[in-house]
Amino acid sequence: MHVTVWNEGQHEKTNQRVMKAYPNGIHNAIAEGLRERGFDSVGTATLDDPEHGLTDEVLAKTNVLLWWGHMAHEKVSDAVVDKVHKRVLEGMGLIVLHSGHFSKIFKRLMGTTCNLMWREIGEKERVWVVNPAHPIAEGLSNYFEIPETEMYGEPFGIPEPDSLVLINWYAGGEVFRGGCCYYRGQGKVFYFSPGHETFPIYYQKEVRQVIANAVKWAAPTNGPKIPVENRAKPLEDIEIKEF
Amino acid sequence: MHVTVWNEGQHEKTNQRVMKAYPNGIHNAIAEGLRERGFDSVGTATLDDPEHGLTDEVLAKTNVLLWWGHMAHEKVSDAVVDKVHKRVLEGMGLIVLHSGHFSKIFKRLMGTTCNLMWREIGEKERVWVVNPAHPIAEGLSNYFEIPETEMYGEPFGIPEPDSLVLINWYAGGEVFRGGCCYYRGQGKVFYFSPGHETFPIYYQKEVRQVIANAVKWAAPTNGPKIPVENRAKPLEDIEIKEF
Amino acid sequence: MHVTVWNEGQHEKTNQRVMKAYPNGIHNAIAEGLRERGFDSVGTATLDDPEHGLTDEVLAKTNVLLWWGHMAHEKVSDAVVDKVHKRVLEGMGLIVLHSGHFSKIFKRLMGTTCNLMWREIGEKERVWVVNPAHPIAEGLSNYFEIPETEMYGEPFGIPEPDSLVLINWYAGGEVFRGGCCYYRGQGKVFYFSPGHETFPIYYQKEVRQVIANAVKWAAPTNGPKIPVENRAKPLEDIEIKEF
Amino acid sequence: MHVTVWNEGQHEKTNQRVMKAYPNGIHNAIAEGLRERGFDSVGTATLDDPEHGLTDEVLAKTNVLLWWGHMAHEKVSDAVVDKVHKRVLEGMGLIVLHSGHFSKIFKRLMGTTCNLMWREIGEKERVWVVNPAHPIAEGLSNYFEIPETEMYGEPFGIPEPDSLVLINWYAGGEVFRGGCCYYRGQGKVFYFSPGHETFPIYYQKEVRQVIANAVKWAAPTNGPKIPVENRAKPLEDIEIKEF
Repeated sequence: MHVTVWNEGQHEKTNQRVMKAYPNGIHNAIAEGLRERGFDSVGTATLDDPEHGLTDEVLAKTNVLLWWGHMAHEKVSDAVVDKVHKRVLEGMGLIVLHSGHFSKIFKRLMGTTCNLMWREIGEKERVWVVNPAHPIAEGLSNYFEIPETEMYGEPFGIPEPDSLVLINWYAGGEVFRGGCCYYRGQGKVFYFSPGHETFPIYYQKEVRQVIANAVKWAAPTNGPKIPVENRAKPLEDIEIKEF
Repeated sequence: MHVTVWNEGQHEKTNQRVMKAYPNGIHNAIAEGLRERGFDSVGTATLDDPEHGLTDEVLAKTNVLLWWGHMAHEKVSDAVVDKVHKRVLEGMGLIVLHSGHFSKIFKRLMGTTCNLMWREIGEKERVWVVNPAHPIAEGLSNYFEIPETEMYGEPFGIPEPDSLVLINWYAGGEVFRGGCCYYRGQGKVFYFSPGHETFPIYYQKEVRQVIANAVKWAAPTNGPKIPVENRAKPLEDIEIKEF
Repeated sequence: MHVTVWNEGQHEKTNQRVMKAYPNGIHNAIAEGLRERGFDSVGTATLDDPEHGLTDEVLAKTNVLLWWGHMAHEKVSDAVVDKVHKRVLEGMGLIVLHSGHFSKIFKRLMGTTCNLMWREIGEKERVWVVNPAHPIAEGLSNYFEIPETEMYGEPFGIPEPDSLVLINWYAGGEVFRGGCCYYRGQGKVFYFSPGHETFPIYYQKEVRQVIANAVKWAAPTNGPKIPVENRAKPLEDIEIKEF
Repeated sequence: MHVTVWNEGQHEKTNQRVMKAYPNGIHNAIAEGLRERGFDSVGTATLDDPEHGLTDEVLAKTNVLLWWGHMAHEKVSDAVVDKVHKRVLEGMGLIVLHSGHFSKIFKRLMGTTCNLMWREIGEKERVWVVNPAHPIAEGLSNYFEIPETEMYGEPFGIPEPDSLVLINWYAGGEVFRGGCCYYRGQGKVFYFSPGHETFPIYYQKEVRQVIANAVKWAAPTNGPKIPVENRAKPLEDIEIKEF
């Protein structure tokens, strides 16, 4: 099981507060959380790496990809997005984090605007579990609290999730579907809203727990392949008419 | 309530069997079925019309758009697809018919390959209702039969429908999710698999009934707008921290 | 289209604050809201009526039933619950309101505990639309506010809704799936959490709008019947083996 | 991980063909399939055992329960059904097999009639995967075939599944949602239609594979508890009004 954490890694270069919050980059904070929870093959990749670090070789060996982006969505090459999209539909798990809601890959997979409301005043957030039977809720209590957060609010322009696991509450008056599962092709996608470039959210244990749970849930299964439009043979005893 | 039936209208120009089955084009057969069922404002549009017949004016007044395409999906301009996509997410209903599963607009909205299996031997099809409470099942019996059809088979590379209304059975041994509802943005999408360019399926009363039901279901509602990423004000009594 | 509003009607007899809030009973406040919005055949029924007002004749003519109960769930006769359950599965719409989450009929239809968290301090509630394309969101803004409410909180022990339309936010820190659609048999069920016996919530225009929308959505359709376990004939040309 | 396979075990006592097909009882054939696939703690229980073999002790240690019944659904005591229902909602997985669709426990959990069409002529069945990303599809091809089967047909009186994994095709002209996942409370439920008391279906490797996959999927997770209606404390800074 190989996990790749992708981070655009731009804020870290220019913003003192981001450098302070994530001195090794957001990707390494997330990767550390996974390693702590027993994942022993966790790589990272960033926008500035050749091919954004997502070469054919890396994508081929990646079972689950995590995606963090914010200010540079448009700088991600369409060729890389095409490859990631294809890999997800073929079975690679994808975990889209926070501002990744506006990434090319998430919008491509959802088919919608992925628009939302937002506010950045460091207000309190509570993340509530609404499907306690779901494996992504493993080890959680009814809710966990993020002391200071960026608000993301409804209506969120996404397809209705195949399973809705988490709903966020914000002190300022909003709610948000913050943990959303999707089956897409032979792959699985999880959107998880908590996280930010300056708040130290990716160090919080419950957030790391959810991400680790999501990686396990999104791991590829060895199921059937969706055909690349194939002509199918009928059962032997059916009459074949010519057309 | 204005309905526009879009048909690429290419087979009708070159294929004798299609000309015979649909002498006025597939779009007019479908439009006729809607007019019979009381829709009094039904227009048509085809690939060869200027802007494919989908000008800003036509799209603005269209409440529900039906889409039939097959051999010329790639000839549909991206600019028109962009406009239709935007209109659907803003509330216009969309009914995608049969081979329209491979249209640019359907693949854009689904985010997946929309691949399937197929076979064209004029075999028998039965369309079973699996959600009898759904308005798209209005007036149907447990199933209806299409005497000669093209088979479309699973696995079908689509997102799990928000409501699955119809499942098809084929004599040759396959099944297919043939009536699939999706909420996307402020709009609704229905995929309906029965139909073909040479089989006279769009004259069949149950098929016309489903299409008419789907148009009613997909009609726009006057609900809230999904924000174009807006900064939201908090409740008045929340402390605003500076970031 | 005939609508019946059922209210246990017990609080109104003993509690001064309820008498003051709903001098004609909760059922009449709800019925008034429907009549204002053009429903011209709206009846009411209460626990103390013979057969709780839900005689065979009343149930036979009711297209959509609304249910409000709180302190007397256990006094509802099982025979009446059996009949309502049967009618819903045969197509009658059912709108379950607020504390009706613990009614026998709702628990029977859901198959789960329908447990929740609660708090009654008159805090602020905001009801957010998360599916703006759904007909139950017709005429709403992104959210509406209830100035003083009873909090109902997650995790809510219900099946994942077939469509989730509304999520509630509470000042005290909770969220709740407050507008939940279910298809059940040939019928439709909507659970709507806002409402209370002392807060004047059933006079609020947005609440009345949602209830009216829900009644329209839940109206019976004339679809196929789910069989009462029937032996089916095969297609004529299949070999019949004896077993 | 402890699995208990429950079988009413009545056909095996009186019907020569059943005795021949399942000389050790259906439960032991199913248990054998699980042991083959690495489950090392698999028990069995039958109707005629004291408390139907489902004592408090057995239920307490069971992580996933499988249920096969047909002719004796009404002989299952309500007290046992109550206990199983409670355990499922608290997290125990439940796999309901074939004619178990009419068991008390399945109808209780679904809240619907669970009616269907049927025919017993030993026709051919094909089980198609429609969600290849789901863990229950692990190791399957696009479809598998059951040479001789009992037909179960739509419309099937169940709630729309939370995930629909399998759809069955029958030679005689029907389809059926044959692999249905449900989240209920803290537990998971899978209905799997293939199986029968005389056809040797529970020896077939693909059927055993699906059952083993389903047991893994339905295993309890250690998520939050749904409250037994609790009064919740608000955030500290909210004003408490007296009511």
